Amino acid sequence: MTSNNHDTLNTQLQELERQYAELRSRKLNLDLTRGKPAAAQLDLSNALDGILDGHYKLADGTDLRNYGGLDGIDEAKRLGAELLDVAPENVLVGGNASLTLMYHIVLHALHIGVRGPDSAWARQGKVKFLCPSPGYDRHFAICEELGIDMIAVPMDDDGPDMDRVEQLVRDDPMIKGIWCVPKYSNPTGCTYSDAVVDRIARLATLAGEHFRVIYDNAYAVHDLVGEPPRLASIMQACERHGTQDSVIQIASTSKITFAGAGLAFMAASKANLDSFKKHLGLVTIGPDKVNQQRHALFLKDRAALNALMQQHAAIIRPKFDCVIDQLEKGLGNRAMGRWNEPRGGYFVSFYTRPGLAGEVVRLAAEAGVKLTPAGAAFPYGKDPEDSHIRLAPTFPAIGEVEQAMQVFVICVQLATLRRQLSG
Amino acid sequence: MTSNNHDTLNTQLQELERQYAELRSRKLNLDLTRGKPAAAQLDLSNALDGILDGHYKLADGTDLRNYGGLDGIDEAKRLGAELLDVAPENVLVGGNASLTLMYHIVLHALHIGVRGPDSAWARQGKVKFLCPSPGYDRHFAICEELGIDMIAVPMDDDGPDMDRVEQLVRDDPMIKGIWCVPKYSNPTGCTYSDAVVDRIARLATLAGEHFRVIYDNAYAVHDLVGEPPRLASIMQACERHGTQDSVIQIASTSKITFAGAGLAFMAASKANLDSFKKHLGLVTIGPDKVNQQRHALFLKDRAALNALMQQHAAIIRPKFDCVIDQLEKGLGNRAMGRWNEPRGGYFVSFYTRPGLAGEVVRLAAEAGVKLTPAGAAFPYGKDPEDSHIRLAPTFPAIGEVEQAMQVFVICVQLATLRRQLSG
Repeated sequence: MTSNNHDTLNTQLQELERQYAELRSRKLNLDLTRGKPAAAQLDLSNALDGILDGHYKLADGTDLRNYGGLDGIDEAKRLGAELLDVAPENVLVGGNASLTLMYHIVLHALHIGVRGPDSAWARQGKVKFLCPSPGYDRHFAICEELGIDMIAVPMDDDGPDMDRVEQLVRDDPMIKGIWCVPKYSNPTGCTYSDAVVDRIARLATLAGEHFRVIYDNAYAVHDLVGEPPRLASIMQACERHGTQDSVIQIASTSKITFAGAGLAFMAASKANLDSFKKHLGLVTIGPDKVNQQRHALFLKDRAALNALMQQHAAIIRPKFDCVIDQLEKGLGNRAMGRWNEPRGGYFVSFYTRPGLAGEVVRLAAEAGVKLTPAGAAFPYGKDPEDSHIRLAPTFPAIGEVEQAMQVFVICVQLATLRRQLSG
Repeated sequence: MTSNNHDTLNTQLQELERQYAELRSRKLNLDLTRGKPAAAQLDLSNALDGILDGHYKLADGTDLRNYGGLDGIDEAKRLGAELLDVAPENVLVGGNASLTLMYHIVLHALHIGVRGPDSAWARQGKVKFLCPSPGYDRHFAICEELGIDMIAVPMDDDGPDMDRVEQLVRDDPMIKGIWCVPKYSNPTGCTYSDAVVDRIARLATLAGEHFRVIYDNAYAVHDLVGEPPRLASIMQACERHGTQDSVIQIASTSKITFAGAGLAFMAASKANLDSFKKHLGLVTIGPDKVNQQRHALFLKDRAALNALMQQHAAIIRPKFDCVIDQLEKGLGNRAMGRWNEPRGGYFVSFYTRPGLAGEVVRLAAEAGVKLTPAGAAFPYGKDPEDSHIRLAPTFPAIGEVEQAMQVFVICVQLATLRRQLSG
């Protein structure tokens, strides 16, 4: 670096330090950590409570209020089938948390065995899972608690690095599963290409019959743009490869109706559903059928679902636009980081220069802007590049998103310049 | 047996065979298997749906619809505290199934460890549980799936045989827990005496710090009589013995409001709750707070709860009276069996002469009356005496209970007499 350059940068740094000190003095309290819907989004589904109008019985005589119906009511299966692009008979409807279904799917395969005790993964040795990263921290936390070793796999713009995935499962028979968020991936926002979906469906032919893809399609209908990407049908791909038992699909209405009081869905082959239900029947007497029927009435057809999702997009798209605008304005063409422009889902992924993510998160916190901890999107919370930061703009008001992003941009600039000048 | 006696009995048998054949020809379809509330009971809580009247926010700003609040809302904790006779801060409120809480309490202690990984029961060897029997089949099913060996312990009229329980835990350090239903025990209907409650609370002093009593107070307020038995406070007893960490209490509203759409509660020491929440936070993002608030509003104070429980009793007491009447009428003073007269809860336990329970259940099924399988109330489904039958009269209409009990009485008489004459 020339001494002229150095002087210019020093001047810039002084100006940034001044701006940052000014921001700190404002004592902001802003939060971009969680992928939570805003109150205005939740308001869209306020009709749920009371929608039954005293009708607690289904046409087939089922009393929604009583025990029974381990895999959910048909009316709610239809909704899950719509979300996951499968037949209703392949759907199981759970309670309010898809995480609970996923935890039990892994627990069941690990300790109980999906095809009897001898098939339990834990009987065969130390179990490993592939974790495309950045990914969803709560997926990884399930592995960590259950003592499953996690192997990070890079995420590309069209899904996981499948060359690497295939090589790994070929080489190591103790790799028993992979986590996938195939559409508007949490947190990179990418949607798997047709080729990736096909290769995911083919994995079991390399990895063996007890390998499972946990295919968490959490953002299946959560589009932000008019012409959203189309996700190929994984079940059709599995049928082509004869691997229907290898993929367990997951969805929920958490970001459709009420985040904490919606429905979770699982779609799987008949053999997998039958086996899982034996386990599930020991864990619960059945899901809340009353709430299932509320949802079936509220989301009565595809048109109602689409209309609702467009209302969600109208509320949150401006927040995403604001994030992207602020990044463009503050960091465009400055080689201080890169980011994705999501076409749906709940997150923007930002990548600092290597080694700066933790520092940016720290600087932002001191200026009153809470961000998801650096590394959270990686197995064991460790981003090998210390570069990735997840931004979640849906919950705060748009004015807060703007303020928070102005702080964020300053923090990225400040961390980058400090490093540059000390390096 | 004199030949006169023999002739009399033969005549009786012929008459019974005739009656039984006649019953079979009626092609009845009756069911006394499940402890399910009747539709009229569920109707008592129909106001739940719509009770929020559009108010989805709590006074403290909590948005019931969004994520968050792993241990439930304060308003619902108050209700759990009422049911379990503890302070609200010792309560965790779950979803619609107390079974799910119990499964995870056992799983957590077994594989994860309530005081860190080294405390996990499974690390110490083959884990065993004490199962007072007859008991609740779904408790035992949790042990069976998780590979926990079950040791049956006799049930007396005042609770488990505590001499036996204390001896067993003293002799075998791998006994890590005991299942209890302390009030209106499922299925014997007994309520633990003050002395038994005290000895249960003292068990950890014999069994070690990682021993756990799963104290499923499912029928805490489910009285059928005007002056119900009073269950001593287990938490007060634990405080006397310094064993607060050894008891996990469970309750639910399944037989208060909607069987399949109510709330489950857990009460425990702060240390136990803190530890369990770490696990629970990996399994769910939180319970359905909307439904919790519905319940808090509906069961707004002790008076509302008591009034509701009296309405339940008014509906089901006649069914229990009918069961007892039919037993008295058909089997009183005939030495063909004995039974309890429950003062609350959901079940009557009937004991045939040894070796006849399975046969009675089979005869009843062939005459169109479904009963819980013989042995279901014992670990591994095996009643060593083949004597116990659980009768659950709440769900059918009273006319059906009467018909079913008439069949039952004939089946007991027939099985007993056949055996007597063949023996």
